[in-house]
Amino acid sequence: MRMAEGVEWAMHSCVNLSWLDGHGPVPAARLAGLYDLPAPYLNKQLQALVRAGVLTSVSGPRGGFRLARAPEEISLLDVVVAVEGPEEAFRCTQILRNGPGGDASVDYRQHCAVSQSMRRAELAWRQELAGRTIADVGHDVVSHTPAAAERVRAALAP
Amino acid sequence: MRMAEGVEWAMHSCVNLSWLDGHGPVPAARLAGLYDLPAPYLNKQLQALVRAGVLTSVSGPRGGFRLARAPEEISLLDVVVAVEGPEEAFRCTQILRNGPGGDASVDYRQHCAVSQSMRRAELAWRQELAGRTIADVGHDVVSHTPAAAERVRAALAP
Repeated sequence: MRMAEGVEWAMHSCVNLSWLDGHGPVPAARLAGLYDLPAPYLNKQLQALVRAGVLTSVSGPRGGFRLARAPEEISLLDVVVAVEGPEEAFRCTQILRNGPGGDASVDYRQHCAVSQSMRRAELAWRQELAGRTIADVGHDVVSHTPAAAERVRAALAP
Repeated sequence: MRMAEGVEWAMHSCVNLSWLDGHGPVPAARLAGLYDLPAPYLNKQLQALVRAGVLTSVSGPRGGFRLARAPEEISLLDVVVAVEGPEEAFRCTQILRNGPGGDASVDYRQHCAVSQSMRRAELAWRQELAGRTIADVGHDVVSHTPAAAERVRAALAP
């Protein structure tokens, strides 16, 4: 069970956009150039972030992407769900329905003890990600590497 | 990011074996027949559980699988890791190495604020799974459906 590497790209792109203080928009090619990423594939992730309401895109020759809201209001869970989709990681196909005493009218995704245990773990994971924002990560980076934000701003400038 | 459906199968197989109180071993075909699962694919998951030390396999005409230790000592994390592998879900490819101010000698998997945040969430997930055992799940099932263990024992009997 592994996430797409697009999650890493999307996270860093959001953190970098958070440092622009509303400047921008920044084209996908420039965001990709920052880390030598393939621009078309990063663009796909950025479009997913737009669909999820994390970014807005501006079309035209001076177009590109910017955060759709304050980085304090974008959680890491928002970014993960935008790229990976909303499904839970554990896949319950309700095999108990076919088992001894199984009942086709029961929704085992809700009632099976295995499903419930897996969901509890998933909730712990989601709560952790929901409790941390793009702004938190940006502050962490700058507290360890004070020049980081300025370097990114310079690299992303038109 | 989704788990293989083999995780569901492996969990239920372990719970079912826990109800046999040391009887067995049970062949893969019989464990698969319980839920109409494809036996060769279930067998693959059971072999993974053997490699992880969760099950032991007995060869020969009366062979099959049994728990390698008490169900109180098999956590849900043991089962997930056996089937899914030990890798973390978040994939850090260290793109910061290529970024402005990037340093090829730094291990960003340890130092990047994004990686650290993702790891914290993964740890919360793992702790939850590590704190719950196959015995816990078995007890939960029986507390809601007292006949469950007996039905499984009857269905798995040679």
